Amino acid sequence: MQAELIIAHAAQLLTVAGGHGPKRGTAMADVGIIEDGALAVRRGRIVAVGPTNEVLADFAAARVVDARGKVVLPGFVDPHTHLVWAGDRAGEFEQRVAGATYMEIMASGGGIMSTVRATRAAPLDELVAQSRARLDRMLAHGTTTAEVKTGYGLELQAELKMLAAIALLDAQHPVDLVPTFLGAHAVPAEYAGRADEYVDLVVDVMLPAIAQGVKGYGSGENDLTPNPSPITPVFCDVFCDQGAFTLEQSRRVLEAARAYGMGLKIHADEFEPLGGTRLAVELGAISADHLVCTSPEEIELLAQSDTIGVALPGTPFGLGHHQYTPARAFIEAGGALALATDLNPGTCWCESMPFIIALACRYMHLTPAEAITAATRNAACAVGLGEETGSLEVGKRADVIILEVDDYRHLGYRFGTNPVQTVIKRGEIVKEGSTA
Amino acid sequence: MQAELIIAHAAQLLTVAGGHGPKRGTAMADVGIIEDGALAVRRGRIVAVGPTNEVLADFAAARVVDARGKVVLPGFVDPHTHLVWAGDRAGEFEQRVAGATYMEIMASGGGIMSTVRATRAAPLDELVAQSRARLDRMLAHGTTTAEVKTGYGLELQAELKMLAAIALLDAQHPVDLVPTFLGAHAVPAEYAGRADEYVDLVVDVMLPAIAQGVKGYGSGENDLTPNPSPITPVFCDVFCDQGAFTLEQSRRVLEAARAYGMGLKIHADEFEPLGGTRLAVELGAISADHLVCTSPEEIELLAQSDTIGVALPGTPFGLGHHQYTPARAFIEAGGALALATDLNPGTCWCESMPFIIALACRYMHLTPAEAITAATRNAACAVGLGEETGSLEVGKRADVIILEVDDYRHLGYRFGTNPVQTVIKRGEIVKEGSTA
Repeated sequence: MQAELIIAHAAQLLTVAGGHGPKRGTAMADVGIIEDGALAVRRGRIVAVGPTNEVLADFAAARVVDARGKVVLPGFVDPHTHLVWAGDRAGEFEQRVAGATYMEIMASGGGIMSTVRATRAAPLDELVAQSRARLDRMLAHGTTTAEVKTGYGLELQAELKMLAAIALLDAQHPVDLVPTFLGAHAVPAEYAGRADEYVDLVVDVMLPAIAQGVKGYGSGENDLTPNPSPITPVFCDVFCDQGAFTLEQSRRVLEAARAYGMGLKIHADEFEPLGGTRLAVELGAISADHLVCTSPEEIELLAQSDTIGVALPGTPFGLGHHQYTPARAFIEAGGALALATDLNPGTCWCESMPFIIALACRYMHLTPAEAITAATRNAACAVGLGEETGSLEVGKRADVIILEVDDYRHLGYRFGTNPVQTVIKRGEIVKEGSTA
Repeated sequence: MQAELIIAHAAQLLTVAGGHGPKRGTAMADVGIIEDGALAVRRGRIVAVGPTNEVLADFAAARVVDARGKVVLPGFVDPHTHLVWAGDRAGEFEQRVAGATYMEIMASGGGIMSTVRATRAAPLDELVAQSRARLDRMLAHGTTTAEVKTGYGLELQAELKMLAAIALLDAQHPVDLVPTFLGAHAVPAEYAGRADEYVDLVVDVMLPAIAQGVKGYGSGENDLTPNPSPITPVFCDVFCDQGAFTLEQSRRVLEAARAYGMGLKIHADEFEPLGGTRLAVELGAISADHLVCTSPEEIELLAQSDTIGVALPGTPFGLGHHQYTPARAFIEAGGALALATDLNPGTCWCESMPFIIALACRYMHLTPAEAITAATRNAACAVGLGEETGSLEVGKRADVIILEVDDYRHLGYRFGTNPVQTVIKRGEIVKEGSTA
């Protein structure tokens, strides 16, 4: 049969297909290695995977990529990012490493509110341009699907502008984006000391407008580009932590979102354990994210639920902390773990999933195979795309990356550089060549 | 006047020229920022540095690189690498993160001896080819000068082969290499339990042959390339630690090397404090490297000496440890700190100085400016090239990098990706364009 693209002769092809996903008893350590492996693509989907001789016996293609001496695996899925923002906080980083406290940084105009100010002020096209540079970098490091949150608008028009930016990037860029509404990311300055009133705004004004697919951003004076189509976020997220939102406030936001049919996510236990993980399980959230200071009881509870645990080791690293998600306990209790970058301008400006894997191996004690499963198959499940991407199986999107190494364990083993040589998104080669 | 190359209109040009170097009272935090900065190059050397309008008033050039919106700084100097080796230890890494002990890894044929076996067995051309891929990656991440150690041969012919590989790479590749003899890197298997006898071999056989510039590697049966010129290493190094060489053995090696006129370096206090730092100061070593578990007294002693302290934060990171060089105490006591990758196949396969800077900011509490000084000016001093490279000053080699960011503090702030867009080595553009 005729295919459009064949990748053949991979030293190792990892299907990451068997026994994974958000179910108890997952086998994250089995990445399904096929030696001298191949796959064939037609109309953006995988039509064959197996040993090269079998695939080539059944399929021919005009374009055959020779992956001799290389590793082929599913494109990374990054299930937790804050990709869209304006400006940067390099000065704040310098203050922080020099010993400034969080309060001192806030007092000097830093912290998340400085990103909110910049993002509110940025015209849509500028917001898209700044974010696109990061999305290019994600793609270059092997990410083919990513979740992206709002949450630097914190008022309806600015949140809609962020959703519009996500929609434009999704339309213009090879990487598939999954939008999440995070209106409850922080209490904006104008609501300081009135967090409950801000939650009212999120629940009574923002969520109805956004969940019902109101006409997207398009009436603001900063709007320099054509009005994109309305976009309804797939998920609603809330930052449940000291200094952000209480457990009760978080419950209000998530229950309201659930009533609109949105999937649920939660930032839980990043700094202080407020019970967010238990809430995620109770509400049937698709994922609970961060999980740095989660109690052993809640780790056990989460592991026995269908909620995926998303670890974000780039954030403790970015902060220079030494405490990371207790991933071994979670995996050993049967939990489905995913990995994400948490890409954001405050604590973790890192677009690279290979680096997150290297961190997870070292400071969360994952094997390279477990970390790869967490960054592909389980990550796809964490954004509701487990049937579409995250593994190399017939019928799935042909989201594939080729590494410049001959053993998958170089992911994890090596760090600080980019091993991803070729990226294929829905069957199209979107990055090719040198990694330097 | 006519120049060959001008870089103009840099948002920030960092000279890293003033007040640094291996002297007490250094000002590592002053990187000499020139806004809208420029430099001119003739015959591979810098002939002008300053504000763009001043440089352009004095010089013209056929090639002008516009660095608008970008940062220009000296190319990184990586003063501690084990660049040359054959094979890899990805399997050992997997064992280690799964909890295998050092002894279990050794028993299963892993550890440094597996790299020694592979390096001894590799033909020279294969050793060069494998190492060149890493050197390309170093260059792509902004390194323009690097020290390279022997130490995976551990017998005269194999050590000479490593020196030949360094010489060939230095001749063929834009990055300037500084060779260091590290015959006392480990006790080879055939001398197990007879470390003193191995030190005899290093001192009585290897050092005389190598220091006196014997005809280089060229008579071995694996030798498939033309015999390179003899090469005499600039420095001699020794691994003074538990499981490697005692303080007395280290002294024997270094004193013998000093008698041959070689500069001295030492691996001190990586795992156990044996007194190596004090020895470095006593013998006037150019650098003492690692310094993870150095006592406060020896940190103070080193800071008050002319010996540079070289921190290698990639190694604790690579091992998943939480203890790093006490750099703040060292800097505050007036020490001259340099940073290096320690690139090696066991504990730190990382070619990226930008990543080492990001680590140093987070886990050693350096500001971005201090880390940049440590990775350029002070690093050049740590390999004896303080007069030649490591800063942007008239008369120095035109070793220059351009970052795709407009504020130098993005070095440190961002991590896991490569901000280096353009690399200029001795006035030649050797990397240009996208960083993805």
